[in-house]
Amino acid sequence: MFSKEIYAARRAKLKQTLGSGLLLFSGNKESGMNYADNTYPFRQDSTFLYFFGLAYADLNAVIDIDNDKEIIFGDELTIDAIVWMGTQPSLKEKGESIGITDIRPSGEIAAYLKNARQQKQTIHYLPSYRAEHQVKLFTWLDVCPGAEKPSVPFILGVVNQRNYKSKEEIEEIEKACIVTADMHLTAMRTVRPGIRESEVAAAVAEVAYSNNYQLSFPIIATINGQTLHNHYHGNLIKSGDMLLLDAGAETEMGYAGDMSSTIPADSRFTTRQKEIYDIAVASHEAAVAALRPGVLFEEVYDLSAQVIMEGLKDLGFVKGDPAEAVKAGAHALFFPCGLGHMMGLDVHDMENLGEVYVGYDGRPKSTQFGRKSLRLGRKLEPGFVLTIEPGIYFIPELIDLWRSRQEFAEFINYEKVATYKDFSGIRNEEDYLITETGARLLGKKIPLHTHEVEALR
Amino acid sequence: MFSKEIYAARRAKLKQTLGSGLLLFSGNKESGMNYADNTYPFRQDSTFLYFFGLAYADLNAVIDIDNDKEIIFGDELTIDAIVWMGTQPSLKEKGESIGITDIRPSGEIAAYLKNARQQKQTIHYLPSYRAEHQVKLFTWLDVCPGAEKPSVPFILGVVNQRNYKSKEEIEEIEKACIVTADMHLTAMRTVRPGIRESEVAAAVAEVAYSNNYQLSFPIIATINGQTLHNHYHGNLIKSGDMLLLDAGAETEMGYAGDMSSTIPADSRFTTRQKEIYDIAVASHEAAVAALRPGVLFEEVYDLSAQVIMEGLKDLGFVKGDPAEAVKAGAHALFFPCGLGHMMGLDVHDMENLGEVYVGYDGRPKSTQFGRKSLRLGRKLEPGFVLTIEPGIYFIPELIDLWRSRQEFAEFINYEKVATYKDFSGIRNEEDYLITETGARLLGKKIPLHTHEVEALR
Repeated sequence: MFSKEIYAARRAKLKQTLGSGLLLFSGNKESGMNYADNTYPFRQDSTFLYFFGLAYADLNAVIDIDNDKEIIFGDELTIDAIVWMGTQPSLKEKGESIGITDIRPSGEIAAYLKNARQQKQTIHYLPSYRAEHQVKLFTWLDVCPGAEKPSVPFILGVVNQRNYKSKEEIEEIEKACIVTADMHLTAMRTVRPGIRESEVAAAVAEVAYSNNYQLSFPIIATINGQTLHNHYHGNLIKSGDMLLLDAGAETEMGYAGDMSSTIPADSRFTTRQKEIYDIAVASHEAAVAALRPGVLFEEVYDLSAQVIMEGLKDLGFVKGDPAEAVKAGAHALFFPCGLGHMMGLDVHDMENLGEVYVGYDGRPKSTQFGRKSLRLGRKLEPGFVLTIEPGIYFIPELIDLWRSRQEFAEFINYEKVATYKDFSGIRNEEDYLITETGARLLGKKIPLHTHEVEALR
Repeated sequence: MFSKEIYAARRAKLKQTLGSGLLLFSGNKESGMNYADNTYPFRQDSTFLYFFGLAYADLNAVIDIDNDKEIIFGDELTIDAIVWMGTQPSLKEKGESIGITDIRPSGEIAAYLKNARQQKQTIHYLPSYRAEHQVKLFTWLDVCPGAEKPSVPFILGVVNQRNYKSKEEIEEIEKACIVTADMHLTAMRTVRPGIRESEVAAAVAEVAYSNNYQLSFPIIATINGQTLHNHYHGNLIKSGDMLLLDAGAETEMGYAGDMSSTIPADSRFTTRQKEIYDIAVASHEAAVAALRPGVLFEEVYDLSAQVIMEGLKDLGFVKGDPAEAVKAGAHALFFPCGLGHMMGLDVHDMENLGEVYVGYDGRPKSTQFGRKSLRLGRKLEPGFVLTIEPGIYFIPELIDLWRSRQEFAEFINYEKVATYKDFSGIRNEEDYLITETGARLLGKKIPLHTHEVEALR
């Protein structure tokens, strides 16, 4: 945890931004897998972590701006809980560690909120992303599930603090990125024909867990890299395959790393693989070179897409003007996802608060297939931490669908594309901090060019 | 998955048991960690798996006994979903694989249930263990969160099928137990002074994941074995410590293994450790020897507790008559948990349906500290699968509390006990099938006696 002064200052700034009302912070509960007490690893809500730092289940908090109160609602452990779960600091001690002295029993939050409603205070709450949040809002505020009205001022207040990473946050993210890089280096040494994807995924997870870190998201370790978020690990890796690994570590404080690499099953990429891979690298490096304050990230996305289309034109997959093709949206056949996203306490930072607020500064997002998956489009500013992850994918179902409709036939050579339906996909991903003058890679460099990857095989 | 005939026969039997009404099966959704799309590994509801076998999110099912219908409610994948998540069999194909042809869109379940209510059908549903189930019941049946009334006949019908494991289920559980044993053997080769608990936990998890299995519950790998369910892995293992490992694998079909072992940090147990460890083993072996159909498991628990108290009396921790001490509840200072539990599609099988139904055949459970944690007390029958896991724990907080109250002072020598507050705890655990004549160990044997454990060090 950071010092109590940091949490107090964050709360003070948020209070100042909102000016009045009552801010309700719903801490997370344990999540049962197949019964209540068989729980997934506990993950505290990230906004709760940012302002209150306490990674314990069953806490909720209120910043009552109107009455100048900061309150943690929670319960002390019973002796039964201590026998089963071990001892913990007392709630008083936990509160002190983040500069809060007003601790009240869990059962009192409903009455506190009821009184606030009677006093006509404005109660601000954030969007629900777990059903438990919906049940709480129903129980405390009579809000029916599905009828939640999250507070836009509260969302904006949080986003405008969390988007700008402080020095100590960057140090923490860098720790996550170093372990994340080690996960990828381990995979590059592990992948070989004849083993299962699950063996690579297990070796990669082992690196995070042995550091007492968690995974910042479920590992993707697949020979079917054309599927962007494929979590199946049951396939055998065969000679000629590529394994796409997208994996990251999360520090004990909750900060994420997120990198991707594409690794040949054999010691070398094939010529066919290298041709496509090199285009993805060119796109990647063009995007990285463009990173600096003031640049609209959506234009960096356009640039990365254009480099892909230029490369694919050289190979005969694409025809016409690459820039026009990107404008029309034809690149989404090969690159149907975004170029990158904010990263911090969430791997897609604050995705639960709404990408339009986090990544677009309130500007509406495109609805075009492909471009609509770009989570970040806004003007870059110092302190932003983001990923760069262009990719080239040959998705058989999408190729068949677009071909049957002759979608963008002026830009796409479907005859040629159809011969690559067994190619799978390529993605490489790194994490960057926007600095005053440009951008800085976070963590350590992992092999990007084919010869660098091959050197580890 | 098993054959479609097996799922059809299970449903037919349940229909026959209930006789009338409508049975609602709530399949699980994906669970978001820190935002909706950053999900924990998907875990289907076990009762849904038992009767419908489909391990996909966002399915629900109805067995409408009154109208002789079996319906799966779900939605086909969109092209966006295929691009991101990969393709899947169609719902029709999924339904066929389990003998169900009536597939309807998700959106229709609410109307179906509304109509059933209008027709005065009895709608049976099971207890909610995730908030998402509460939200569904609210949305579909106007049941307020916290006001659920699960159906006891439905619970009993499910329990009376799932408690008796079939041949093919036992084969599946045995697969889980073999990998579970490998996890413990790996730990016995890994533990050493100077590494962190997290390194052991990571090596153990790696064994499950590389088999493309999941963990059946969060790994316990701790030098503080006195805390029964301790999931913190941040401590350094020092010379003189013991590491308590409680870990199990879950097969791709969802069946669990669950074993525990206690491993010295050094190559040998100390004399002090061995004295206590040997008592735990004697208790364990006495319990195993007593397993056979017709035996009341609560009496096996009494036996295991009595062996512990006899051993502790020989060492001077305990005085008076051991059997009387167990009857009074004094053993719970050292053995505050149960002796074992049912195991199957859940590691604590059907814990969500209520331990009284699963483990006590409807008979009320004891409320005595220690004995109340015994999840299984009923008469054993062939086909039951259960764990045997007696333990001896020295829990400083509990020792201090009981000593301050002079709890059971006629049975406990607190002077001596207080000198063991730094001892930690010991637990060994194996999985057994109750056969027609006795019991059979599932999976493969892992070292139990000190010399067996030391041979692997």
